[in-house]
Amino acid sequence: MTPERVAADMAEDIDMAVHRHVEKLLRGYLAERRAELPALAQTFAAAVDTLSDFALRGGKRIRPTFAWWGWRAAGGEGTGTRAEAVLTAVSALELIQTCALVHDDLMDASELRRGHPTVHVRFTDAHRAGGWLGEPERFGMAAAILLGDLALAWADDMFTGAPLSDRMRGAARGPWLAMRAEMFAGQYLDVLAQAEGDESEERALGVARLKTAAYTVERPLHMGVALAGADEDTIAAVRAFGTDVGVAFQLRDDLLGVYGDTEVTGKPAGDDLREGKRTLLVSLGLGYADEAGRHADADLLRRALGDPGLTQETIQRVRDLLVEVGAVDELERRIEKLTVSAMAALDAAGLDEPGRTRLADLAIAATRRDR
Amino acid sequence: MTPERVAADMAEDIDMAVHRHVEKLLRGYLAERRAELPALAQTFAAAVDTLSDFALRGGKRIRPTFAWWGWRAAGGEGTGTRAEAVLTAVSALELIQTCALVHDDLMDASELRRGHPTVHVRFTDAHRAGGWLGEPERFGMAAAILLGDLALAWADDMFTGAPLSDRMRGAARGPWLAMRAEMFAGQYLDVLAQAEGDESEERALGVARLKTAAYTVERPLHMGVALAGADEDTIAAVRAFGTDVGVAFQLRDDLLGVYGDTEVTGKPAGDDLREGKRTLLVSLGLGYADEAGRHADADLLRRALGDPGLTQETIQRVRDLLVEVGAVDELERRIEKLTVSAMAALDAAGLDEPGRTRLADLAIAATRRDR
Repeated sequence: MTPERVAADMAEDIDMAVHRHVEKLLRGYLAERRAELPALAQTFAAAVDTLSDFALRGGKRIRPTFAWWGWRAAGGEGTGTRAEAVLTAVSALELIQTCALVHDDLMDASELRRGHPTVHVRFTDAHRAGGWLGEPERFGMAAAILLGDLALAWADDMFTGAPLSDRMRGAARGPWLAMRAEMFAGQYLDVLAQAEGDESEERALGVARLKTAAYTVERPLHMGVALAGADEDTIAAVRAFGTDVGVAFQLRDDLLGVYGDTEVTGKPAGDDLREGKRTLLVSLGLGYADEAGRHADADLLRRALGDPGLTQETIQRVRDLLVEVGAVDELERRIEKLTVSAMAALDAAGLDEPGRTRLADLAIAATRRDR
Repeated sequence: MTPERVAADMAEDIDMAVHRHVEKLLRGYLAERRAELPALAQTFAAAVDTLSDFALRGGKRIRPTFAWWGWRAAGGEGTGTRAEAVLTAVSALELIQTCALVHDDLMDASELRRGHPTVHVRFTDAHRAGGWLGEPERFGMAAAILLGDLALAWADDMFTGAPLSDRMRGAARGPWLAMRAEMFAGQYLDVLAQAEGDESEERALGVARLKTAAYTVERPLHMGVALAGADEDTIAAVRAFGTDVGVAFQLRDDLLGVYGDTEVTGKPAGDDLREGKRTLLVSLGLGYADEAGRHADADLLRRALGDPGLTQETIQRVRDLLVEVGAVDELERRIEKLTVSAMAALDAAGLDEPGRTRLADLAIAATRRDR
């Protein structure tokens, strides 16, 4: 589709389908970058197609969506060239996420993502099928590292290349910068907590705040309202909303990681346990079991964490245990409390409709049981 | 050191010690970013210190140096706030290089870099020393991926945060964008050539052009002259110079990778052979040996490539062989020819002194035998 067609189509109504417009912009951006690759790099272009397929295949586009509704709620217009520039800038968040997922799947040695082989697995398989020299896994790793890096570099290019005014670009730069450092920090703390076997609530909440709340909700919203020229009070209120929603989102994810239906989550049952993730659910479960003198149960849970051969039976015992000691109820209470405080912060922000309502809806959708 | 001190010190004379000024700017930038990390991320800050140590430990700062002299040769001033902004923007190239090295060492499973343990090895060792949970190598890999990603994100922040005018930023954006795609493309082609056992001269030269020439010389120079407002003819001439110098630089590197003194290169003897690098030297060596009917010798070389247990004796046989079939002489001839054409392009560019002479000196230094 030509840039003119994209623009004409977008002017119709971004509000009606943010998700679809984000994908259109991503598709256009990636096609443009691919066309610019030097003639020498045509084998690389084929690898880039794998990356593009991955970036365009799905996902909820939750980060650009929060950013868009932040923009709208703080008074940004829904159509026109300025609105399109804003959507381009915040669509770049999806390329950060592409990098994060490609590298995360490699770090976690995950084989599947959204029902398809992960990027490192695709290149490992290509190496094996070609009967090439060296270790297939090493080739898969190299390709995934390089393609994730490329997505990260292109995220910056897409963001800085969006035709924003200097005022707008300057306003969005702070959260854009902070968001990436917080995301990598959160991922590192997550990996470190798993390695150290950290059972503290503090660490689990720290990971949730950095890796999920800041990266997924707070900073995208911050970008959106800052682009619209919101004042400091509004920015502070929206960030408070974003932090609470983001942490609640992660706590819901903790529950889905243990109790979720494979068909809904797209991951094997009990995957979080198998990976040894140090979630708040696990931290509370261990604490409550120990407090209640159920040391054998606590040990069962400790042994289950990070056990690659975890059986269905043990998963079920852990599930029952976390309910019995009250960890699940406490998580639900916290999600509820965070949702209430998020809504209070949202009300205090004095935002415009329909943005305010859409943000409230997004918050509910992100934290509800049947997410 | 305060920003004021840095500025005062720099105004003295960047030309006299580009290298030192680049390091000062990098040190300041990294300290600033570290200070901004959220309180929650203090364990990550310790990991970031490892990254900073790595970035500041050494290296020739060749990319910012080429960019700086491009700026000066195209009429950019040597002192003042504009000059300092330019040096900040091009110092960001060193953070790209930090990402490239951290990720490259991981992909190549290299243990040492500049005589110190590589980043993934440092974190693998920390995991092992702490007796942590899970595989030490997996933790080392995760830390190296995340810290390399952070360096890449910060490279963009340092570049876009430099206080350039809109005209200057716009002019540098094209080469900045292209440079990263070309670098990742070159690295991918390199890995792919090793996997496929590609013996073609074309592929070896393609890797040299993208991975070394474009990334290390051509694009940094392009950034420098574009920042100074050079016209299209000048840019084209300087890029031609940069491409020739960059390819010659890589061909010299090919020779050092096989014949270099470990004390000078900092790598074990014959490391390029052991890693199975598909250099032009190897491509010509195989071609000439086959042409001369020396099939047993060609097979010896083929078997040596990528052999982790390569003996000193075999390395010496390969060295002799590459001399005997004429591959080494041909490489020297090509380096000479590229240097001559580079100098012709430089003369045609009509550049200012002292920049022109410094670029010529850099070209000679990058390609000479005792580099």
